Amino acid sequence: MGRWEPNASGRLREAALDLYVERGFEQTTVAEIAARAGLTARTFFRHFADKREVLFAGSELLEEHMVEALDRAPEAASPMEAVGAALDAAAGTLGRNRDFSRRRHLVIVANGELQERELIKMTRLATALTEGLRRRGVAEGDARLAAEAGVAVLRVAFERWVTEPEERDLALVMRESVERLRSLTR
Amino acid sequence: MGRWEPNASGRLREAALDLYVERGFEQTTVAEIAARAGLTARTFFRHFADKREVLFAGSELLEEHMVEALDRAPEAASPMEAVGAALDAAAGTLGRNRDFSRRRHLVIVANGELQERELIKMTRLATALTEGLRRRGVAEGDARLAAEAGVAVLRVAFERWVTEPEERDLALVMRESVERLRSLTR
Repeated sequence: MGRWEPNASGRLREAALDLYVERGFEQTTVAEIAARAGLTARTFFRHFADKREVLFAGSELLEEHMVEALDRAPEAASPMEAVGAALDAAAGTLGRNRDFSRRRHLVIVANGELQERELIKMTRLATALTEGLRRRGVAEGDARLAAEAGVAVLRVAFERWVTEPEERDLALVMRESVERLRSLTR
Repeated sequence: MGRWEPNASGRLREAALDLYVERGFEQTTVAEIAARAGLTARTFFRHFADKREVLFAGSELLEEHMVEALDRAPEAASPMEAVGAALDAAAGTLGRNRDFSRRRHLVIVANGELQERELIKMTRLATALTEGLRRRGVAEGDARLAAEAGVAVLRVAFERWVTEPEERDLALVMRESVERLRSLTR
C-alpha cells in the first residue's frame, strides 16, 4: 500500500491521518476529512462508521491474520513458536506502510480515549491468541501467558519500529524482541 | 484484614461488594451501600469519590508497594528478579483477603466498563514498573518487556488464585507463573 491509493477508502484514510496529525483527532470533523479527500461525507460513511474507525479498521484484519497464522503453525510447534508465527503475520500486515503506522501512532499516543481503545483492541487480540492456543491443546494458564507475552512483544517491537530513525524490517524487530524476552526470563 | 472491619471504610467496602455481587454494579446506588453498612451517604463520600472507587482504591496502593519493592531490590538483581520482588509485594497486598478479591473479580468480569478501568490500571502499573526498571539502568525495550511480562504474570496468577477451589499462597502461584513463562520462552 503506497501513500496515495487511488481508491476512496485509501484517500479518506490518508486525509484523516493528515488532519489528525495537523489539528488533533478531537478537532477534526468528518466533513473536513471528506473535503480534504475531495469526496463527500456520504462517501466517508460508506467506508467508515465514524472518524475513530479510520484508525481501528485495520485491527480486525490484524487479529484475523494473526489467528490464521497461529492456527496454521505446524502441530509440533511449541506455544511460543506458534505465537512467533502470529507475530510474523502481524509484521506482514502492519509492516507494509511505516509512514501510515508512524502517524497513526502519533495520533493515538496524543489522545487518552484513543489509547484506551487501542489497549482494548490489544486485550481482545490477547484473548483471541489465547483461544487459538487452547485449540492447539495448550493448557489455559500457559496459553494466556504465551499470548500476553506475544502481545507485549508486538507492542514493544511495533513502537520501536515506528520510532527508530531508519526503517527496518518489522518482522526482524519482532524476532529481536522475542529473543530479548527469552534472555530476560532466562 | 478480616471480612468484618470495624472501621467505616471497611464496612462500606464490604457492603458495596455484597450489593455489587447480589444486584450488579450498575444497579447499586451509593445510598443503598451506605444503608447496608448502617452509615450515611455523606460518610460514604468522605471515604470514596464514587461507587467505582470502592473497587479501585486499592490499585494505587498495589502500584506503590510494587514500585517500592522494585526500587529496593538488590543492585545486582536482574530485571526479572527485580520484577519478581515486585510480584512478591503484590502478593502481600492482594493475597490478604481472598474472599474480597474473589468477589471483586466476579464484579469486574461482569461489567465491560469496569474491565476497561482495570485494564487501564494494569497498563499504568506496567508503565510504573517500566520507569522503575529504567531507574535501575535497564534499557528501554528490556524494561518494557520485563514490566509487561510481570503484569501478564500478575494477571494470570491472580485469576488462577481467585478461581482455584482451594486457597493457596498467592506468592507461590505467582512464582509458578514466572516459572511457566520461563519455560514457555525457553
